[in-house]
Amino acid sequence: MTTLTESLTKIKNEAPLVHNITNYVVMNNTANALLAIGASPVMAHALEEVEEIVSIAASLVINIGTLSKPWIAAMLQAAEKAKALQKPFVLDPVGAGASRLRTQTCWQLMDTYTPTVIRGNASEIMALASEAVETKGVDSTQSSERALQAAQQLALKLGNVVVISGAIDYITNGKETIEVHHGSPLMTKVTGMGCTATALIGAFVAVSPEVLTAAAQAMLLMGKAGELTAEKVTGPGSFQAHFLDTLYQAVEATWPNEVEMSYQNA
Amino acid sequence: MTTLTESLTKIKNEAPLVHNITNYVVMNNTANALLAIGASPVMAHALEEVEEIVSIAASLVINIGTLSKPWIAAMLQAAEKAKALQKPFVLDPVGAGASRLRTQTCWQLMDTYTPTVIRGNASEIMALASEAVETKGVDSTQSSERALQAAQQLALKLGNVVVISGAIDYITNGKETIEVHHGSPLMTKVTGMGCTATALIGAFVAVSPEVLTAAAQAMLLMGKAGELTAEKVTGPGSFQAHFLDTLYQAVEATWPNEVEMSYQNA
Amino acid sequence: MTTLTESLTKIKNEAPLVHNITNYVVMNNTANALLAIGASPVMAHALEEVEEIVSIAASLVINIGTLSKPWIAAMLQAAEKAKALQKPFVLDPVGAGASRLRTQTCWQLMDTYTPTVIRGNASEIMALASEAVETKGVDSTQSSERALQAAQQLALKLGNVVVISGAIDYITNGKETIEVHHGSPLMTKVTGMGCTATALIGAFVAVSPEVLTAAAQAMLLMGKAGELTAEKVTGPGSFQAHFLDTLYQAVEATWPNEVEMSYQNA
Repeated sequence: MTTLTESLTKIKNEAPLVHNITNYVVMNNTANALLAIGASPVMAHALEEVEEIVSIAASLVINIGTLSKPWIAAMLQAAEKAKALQKPFVLDPVGAGASRLRTQTCWQLMDTYTPTVIRGNASEIMALASEAVETKGVDSTQSSERALQAAQQLALKLGNVVVISGAIDYITNGKETIEVHHGSPLMTKVTGMGCTATALIGAFVAVSPEVLTAAAQAMLLMGKAGELTAEKVTGPGSFQAHFLDTLYQAVEATWPNEVEMSYQNA
Repeated sequence: MTTLTESLTKIKNEAPLVHNITNYVVMNNTANALLAIGASPVMAHALEEVEEIVSIAASLVINIGTLSKPWIAAMLQAAEKAKALQKPFVLDPVGAGASRLRTQTCWQLMDTYTPTVIRGNASEIMALASEAVETKGVDSTQSSERALQAAQQLALKLGNVVVISGAIDYITNGKETIEVHHGSPLMTKVTGMGCTATALIGAFVAVSPEVLTAAAQAMLLMGKAGELTAEKVTGPGSFQAHFLDTLYQAVEATWPNEVEMSYQNA
Repeated sequence: MTTLTESLTKIKNEAPLVHNITNYVVMNNTANALLAIGASPVMAHALEEVEEIVSIAASLVINIGTLSKPWIAAMLQAAEKAKALQKPFVLDPVGAGASRLRTQTCWQLMDTYTPTVIRGNASEIMALASEAVETKGVDSTQSSERALQAAQQLALKLGNVVVISGAIDYITNGKETIEVHHGSPLMTKVTGMGCTATALIGAFVAVSPEVLTAAAQAMLLMGKAGELTAEKVTGPGSFQAHFLDTLYQAVEATWPNEVEMSYQNA
């Protein structure tokens, strides 16, 4: 199995073009995160150009954080093209469950153009799973156990990989589940860290067909970089800036391969 | 009367959801500022979802910095819903006076859905007041005295709170006026500090019915955090990052309550 | 000929209003870069207001980084107004060549409303030149020599100034060409540094009719600020923040005039 360092080296050498149709809030940060690890970001959302951009890209990342009708049309068209060209497509269901528009847009994207990976927090994944798979109802507590179960069922149904990020990250294809026990509480005080994780997954799946491993490595990179950054900063503002430095150093200085990663079977 | 520390503690404990329909330039910063003080930001501007988002939010912040027709429609719908649900609504009239589109959009929002608080700079508030209230004409100098008078008349007419930010901040309901004498000149070299102030007002009014005090506390937090940040940084770029750290520390470390705040009756 | 310091002093004193119709990714950074050097940024893209904003602005900057139909309409209207009022207009053809929408939008803007300055990277300039001027075909290598030739032909044809930014920057009016040998590799790891260069050109041409010199000075400022910033930071995230500090210090502390600038005739 590929190591994190091997994947980072591959990203650095191949500089995969990652096509992002993402939200206004995080565009700058996710573009910078992709650049920091050696990938090449492009942001494009016009219906008139998304097919051409998908054609030259190595992967597609769709993030519904600031949705509107024209963007949804472009997302659907881009996802269709990615499917036709068999390019990896990563979905970030920001705020799924908070409005029908968001939840329905996700279902539309999931049902027709199966995302290679879906990454969300526990409540977003449960919102997606609650109608896509049979559940015993959505707990208001949304315990991580219930969320993991939902993620596994969703992944089995779609035949893809689903990632729940949180204090512990779960990366699952329904049969196998990887846990990542890294990160910092400060990451919850910076907007768009989840969106950055999704964008990085887009870079990892662009250079590797081992989707489960690729998604787990992206989450491991996020968590480990979060820990290292948190040690050096005085709050969320300096965290946001220095997190990019840490990502950049991860590629340049090559971390040890042996970052702890615990596996469990579902 | 609630102290600033009490309000910050309340925000931290309640984590109010603040719905922002704001401009592209500052979305990242205002989301981060809200997170830094413990509030929970959501950005949503689609006509199809703003009512649902207002329904689950504790307050609504509308900022017209990068306006367009579809966004105006969503702003009006969100403001209508906030009024119907009696949720606090804060308006930032960025660039009012610079184009008819901006000035008229503000009037439309003000006339029909009285914002709980309006925060702008002197020239924006005078642009709003110049047709809403009787003035002796707008000085090109826009002295702070003239601006304050306009703010007071506007607040009296609308029955709300109007905030002018500047070297001295004025927070007025037309009868009572609070001055805040804090801040740093460096804040004028960072884009969106005013927008951040408006977003923070959104968090303070979400947890307190004492609107005048809540708005003043948000401005006091901005000014004091600006001073503390300016001491540590080398320019506007590091200011922008470290200002968020300072806000975060304000909540975590709890500043002394006795930050100087001078009151005067109008 | 005006020196860089003289131009910076002029920008600081006149605080020219630079109207930006730019992409979502970089809005915050370019607004901050303009503020840092003493200019006054305004972002406005609504068809209903761009003419009014151009009328009060000292220059117009159009950047096609995240294009869509409504924005294109506003760009054309703003460019038309700038031409009518003889205000400088700077074009950043982000991603020209990557989609027909981008390439054609640039041609539409170039053919009808000749930009005062066009700034892009080598591949963008070659994409614009490949149909606008006779070339011997676009090399996949896009050597800087070939790109420079394309820029010179484009500038001659349009009667304007074309800037290619890269390890060496070329600023040409087709007859005279200025080279700037400054910068840092780290600048390629931060999104929107090119867009920032374009915005700064907008400030320089706003205060000076010597367009070739003004554009070269903006590139010199970028390159020199990049070098100074790179010495102080640990990666692209801290670079982004501290680059603004360096720009700010350039204005406040006034660098020596004698920054090396090599000239050559084409």
